[in-house]
Amino acid sequence: MTPIHDQPQTATRAVATHRFDLRVYYEDTDLAGIVYYANYLKFIERARSEWVRELGIDQTRMKAEGQVFAVRRVEADYLSPARYDDVLHVETVMLPGSGARLVMQQDVKRGDMVLFSAVVTIICMTSDGTVVRLPAAIRQAGR
Amino acid sequence: MTPIHDQPQTATRAVATHRFDLRVYYEDTDLAGIVYYANYLKFIERARSEWVRELGIDQTRMKAEGQVFAVRRVEADYLSPARYDDVLHVETVMLPGSGARLVMQQDVKRGDMVLFSAVVTIICMTSDGTVVRLPAAIRQAGR
Amino acid sequence: MTPIHDQPQTATRAVATHRFDLRVYYEDTDLAGIVYYANYLKFIERARSEWVRELGIDQTRMKAEGQVFAVRRVEADYLSPARYDDVLHVETVMLPGSGARLVMQQDVKRGDMVLFSAVVTIICMTSDGTVVRLPAAIRQAGR
Amino acid sequence: MTPIHDQPQTATRAVATHRFDLRVYYEDTDLAGIVYYANYLKFIERARSEWVRELGIDQTRMKAEGQVFAVRRVEADYLSPARYDDVLHVETVMLPGSGARLVMQQDVKRGDMVLFSAVVTIICMTSDGTVVRLPAAIRQAGR
Repeated sequence: MTPIHDQPQTATRAVATHRFDLRVYYEDTDLAGIVYYANYLKFIERARSEWVRELGIDQTRMKAEGQVFAVRRVEADYLSPARYDDVLHVETVMLPGSGARLVMQQDVKRGDMVLFSAVVTIICMTSDGTVVRLPAAIRQAGR
Repeated sequence: MTPIHDQPQTATRAVATHRFDLRVYYEDTDLAGIVYYANYLKFIERARSEWVRELGIDQTRMKAEGQVFAVRRVEADYLSPARYDDVLHVETVMLPGSGARLVMQQDVKRGDMVLFSAVVTIICMTSDGTVVRLPAAIRQAGR
Repeated sequence: MTPIHDQPQTATRAVATHRFDLRVYYEDTDLAGIVYYANYLKFIERARSEWVRELGIDQTRMKAEGQVFAVRRVEADYLSPARYDDVLHVETVMLPGSGARLVMQQDVKRGDMVLFSAVVTIICMTSDGTVVRLPAAIRQAGR
Repeated sequence: MTPIHDQPQTATRAVATHRFDLRVYYEDTDLAGIVYYANYLKFIERARSEWVRELGIDQTRMKAEGQVFAVRRVEADYLSPARYDDVLHVETVMLPGSGARLVMQQDVKRGDMVLFSAVVTIICMTSDGTVVRLPAAIRQAGR
């Protein structure tokens, strides 16, 4: 989870955890009375969008320039259900990636309790599907 | 519901009701155990997409040519709830519109029972928001 | 739109506009590059949930006691599209209803610009579908 | 992917692939013009629902009896994007699990091309969160 133990000098930056708060609404639940399993992916994407914005990246401009982020892989554990009206937050931490791949740990928590934990791999690609380097702001954030 | 009583010669075509079948899945429900109210709009849009396709209109090509359908107005009555696992169908009928506006009655039914009934007004617009004439196939379908 | 002109003594309360802020994320958009039309119903439901909470109503408890709010009718005008990354807010005002029906005007705005405007009728019903009186906190809010 | 190589006598049953067809609609896409990543989880859940129904399991009755299926883990690879109007199908195969865990491979394909491939672990739990044995029909299907 803290992949940079060997790099104490950059630890402060690299383990920086981004926090995003959200509320569970009716739209998020299903008839089991809990958050529908696909909707956690929406929650963590909202968090990624805010994290990316805070890095100074404008996804609308990126798209106008023909590049979008795309999810390549998700490994997700559903540990405990979130319910209607819950106040949750998403914690996002960058894991070691590469110039072409952004890997993030994203946990959805209610207070201290982890309800959902995912490792998400993101790439950047052009409209014809070619994988390109990640924006510099992201490559630098991971250092 | 059958707005063309005065035009018997075109009645057969104009009252043609398009039918689209669907099943209610977990994703469609909310914690009240019934279909979430916004999701009926998804159901009727699936039906419109199939209806438009059957008229020979390719929405992907339309979009590549810079035009999309846009919903301008929805009046919707929620009469009785649909539930998980229900087999539903959408009945779509064109109401009198104009060259610029397509007005449709769309009912979501379970067997003979109307659960949801909407009147939807559609326009066609370019990517800069200009309203343009509807595709000829639609204008002719309404005659 | 301001239905209480004849009741100046209660005007302050009755015209109280509830405001709910939100951001447009990827999940909200469709391939036309704008917010998918059903998702405005999600936005205004989030606003209603917060408004109801602020009136002191706990929907989870209501449900445990066998009552839920249900939408009976929506009249919605789509005036101008919202786009990815937009910061929007929902303005909610109660319109004159009755003990059994709650009618609300709900506008989705970007700054001063109204993008979507709906009149929504809500009822309160038991799990067997019987319509019951609205919670007292709501009936009183409308006076 | 075919985990039963050592059990040739049951191979026919165990490798039985369930197929579920679907169409991509506007609701499924995002502004990148492709299927939004969370929506593949909806697609594969529709397929699981149909597969479970074909095994004779009534999820509505299960829920009335206080049991629901819950997803415990998803490992998903996004290989190639699905687009508006695509005709897709989901192929579902049971992998070796246990009496308490159902593990399934679920691929979303366009023709022969795999666009999305997931391994999903399902459990059965009561409304208070206790994990219980899977329904017999599922345990037998996996043999």
